[in-house]
Amino acid sequence: MAEILASAVSHHSAQLSRLGSAHLEALAIGAGILGTGGGGNPYLGKIHAREVLKGGRTVPVVALANLPDDAVVVSVGGIGSPTVGVERLTEGSEFLRAMRALEHHTGRTATHMIAAEIGGSNALAPIVTAAKAGLPVVDGDGMGRAFPELQMDTFFIYGISPTPNAIADVRGHIAIYDNISDARVLERYVRVVTVQMGGGAGGAGPLLSGLDARRTAIPGTLSLAIRMGEAVIAAREVHENAIEAALSISGGERLFEGKITDVGRRLIGGFARGRVNLDGSGPDAGRRLVIDFQNENLVARDENGRVLCSVPDLICIVDAENAEPITTEVLRYGLRVAVLGIPAPAMISTPAALEIVGPAAFGYPEVVYTPLAGIYGMGVRSLAAR
Amino acid sequence: MAEILASAVSHHSAQLSRLGSAHLEALAIGAGILGTGGGGNPYLGKIHAREVLKGGRTVPVVALANLPDDAVVVSVGGIGSPTVGVERLTEGSEFLRAMRALEHHTGRTATHMIAAEIGGSNALAPIVTAAKAGLPVVDGDGMGRAFPELQMDTFFIYGISPTPNAIADVRGHIAIYDNISDARVLERYVRVVTVQMGGGAGGAGPLLSGLDARRTAIPGTLSLAIRMGEAVIAAREVHENAIEAALSISGGERLFEGKITDVGRRLIGGFARGRVNLDGSGPDAGRRLVIDFQNENLVARDENGRVLCSVPDLICIVDAENAEPITTEVLRYGLRVAVLGIPAPAMISTPAALEIVGPAAFGYPEVVYTPLAGIYGMGVRSLAAR
Repeated sequence: MAEILASAVSHHSAQLSRLGSAHLEALAIGAGILGTGGGGNPYLGKIHAREVLKGGRTVPVVALANLPDDAVVVSVGGIGSPTVGVERLTEGSEFLRAMRALEHHTGRTATHMIAAEIGGSNALAPIVTAAKAGLPVVDGDGMGRAFPELQMDTFFIYGISPTPNAIADVRGHIAIYDNISDARVLERYVRVVTVQMGGGAGGAGPLLSGLDARRTAIPGTLSLAIRMGEAVIAAREVHENAIEAALSISGGERLFEGKITDVGRRLIGGFARGRVNLDGSGPDAGRRLVIDFQNENLVARDENGRVLCSVPDLICIVDAENAEPITTEVLRYGLRVAVLGIPAPAMISTPAALEIVGPAAFGYPEVVYTPLAGIYGMGVRSLAAR
Repeated sequence: MAEILASAVSHHSAQLSRLGSAHLEALAIGAGILGTGGGGNPYLGKIHAREVLKGGRTVPVVALANLPDDAVVVSVGGIGSPTVGVERLTEGSEFLRAMRALEHHTGRTATHMIAAEIGGSNALAPIVTAAKAGLPVVDGDGMGRAFPELQMDTFFIYGISPTPNAIADVRGHIAIYDNISDARVLERYVRVVTVQMGGGAGGAGPLLSGLDARRTAIPGTLSLAIRMGEAVIAAREVHENAIEAALSISGGERLFEGKITDVGRRLIGGFARGRVNLDGSGPDAGRRLVIDFQNENLVARDENGRVLCSVPDLICIVDAENAEPITTEVLRYGLRVAVLGIPAPAMISTPAALEIVGPAAFGYPEVVYTPLAGIYGMGVRSLAAR
């Protein structure tokens, strides 16, 4: 299997320079896993991306390090709860409308798109927008995963002004925000209008210089997501262990294997909040796991209440057989799943970042963040190490 | 008394051409009465206006009919509940910030200001803004009174697009809305952000051509408010009946006289909603009155449940002695008041307007609007007619 994985990875070890429809399946899987339950259903994003990339069309991909200082980089991402995302299909052009509103407001013209978050359908949003606008997309993002709130973006954590910022809905309704220095305040203003818009909106902002993007974005996460998805697909094709394949690219470990016994979920203030209970099977027979989520999975505890993994590390629920990521909104009784723990990228686990994305920021002051061992985004992890 | 009133009125029968601090006391009283309990406390608006009009500074007043076709008229008004308005003093420059945001967004430069609503402190908002911006103010408004929601503006009732529209708060936070064709949708988007802003914001929009303003605004309401206030002040000075003086200018009738026995008030979704109960005295001894309000007074019923007056007609609670208007947020047990009923201006009582500002639109489908007899804004009403 190691050979097969090495082959799947080496095939793409060259710098990803253009992204086309051939990458979408892999990207949806990889972004789904990095979404840790949230970020919007990647399959919906994939449908839109496939439509705009049909006929062999591709979008140029630019490494973060290669961005010119004076590039005008616009971050785009969806706002809302994944629960609503499923019921209220976005049409993919909200992001372009939001970006145009931001361009109009600032008098600047975007030169590059970047993902606000690489998790879930939000990984596809900048690609759809870039294809529609004829722009390149940056290989990187502002979270390295999915998080539920705007202030959790590394752009804001590392000092970029949260506004100007714009949102648009499927009807074309637009709200532009300006002169707000606290990203948590922007988050509230954006969230309440998104709820009024029906629960989902496309967001554009911040608008960053190339210099600022290089300083504040997390590099390489777009190609990481694609590599992870390709490894999963390659493993499935030869009936190898797809979960090990995903872990081989992302680092991290299998936290738990079992069956979902209960899901409690409420839509509160534009978020899907809840808890999922699992009974162990196979190596985890007789054990239990409880995962709390707010759009994304936040804290995983075992039957003794011991925390196995917590934000900002990634808690990813995937199908036990084929490693298909399972987002929060489709969790249901009886699903047989594996729970993966993937170490957070360095930029979201600094002391400054933990203030915003650590357990306490999500209402778990009692949870002390204990980083998972592992190498995130550093390429193939030795399977022998397990 | 008729002579005194005639004198008070004739003194100002000439077209109001400039507005200065000498008019503010009268305007605050008149606008307070036309506010029908809402529109923000006129005393706070007066304080800001006095500050910007000190040193003899005046603002030009332009009759609606004299607006050039290509004038760029910006409507301004405060958003929020009066309850919050008292606790969270606006500083008067939110309106200017919102107007500048609207100018920036549209690429147009305002030439005139107009009041979104002539009721309460919102009558002062365009004057403060006009003084700060060095612009004239239009003698007219978009409601002829105060109403709690944006879609109740005659601009929108008569077809002006609700967006672009902008709001700003005391910290300078700005939200701009665009591409929204339904004013009720804009109302919801604006309301939720205003709540997040702390409950109060300054709004700017719509931006109208002179042609559109002439077609959709209610003429003469700024000078009407001043005339009404001047009549009240004149009557007080000579110890005449200030309530009759107010009615002599506005038309309408004294619906009730008595004491407040109970006030129920809740802050819901950015509005002050509630009910006030009164026991009659003097000519109304032995009778009772109940008034429902949502920021503004909506429906007045007697002890038999009979509707004496309802929206869009104006239900105004004033001090029984000096006709001082009493806004919703200062209603309290024991106050001795008179309740005035003033007929709505024609533009807010058409069938099209009643769809938006009639009793059913406020949740009273059982109330059939029966217009009060009277002549609104048509000058002095014969006291002998009572």
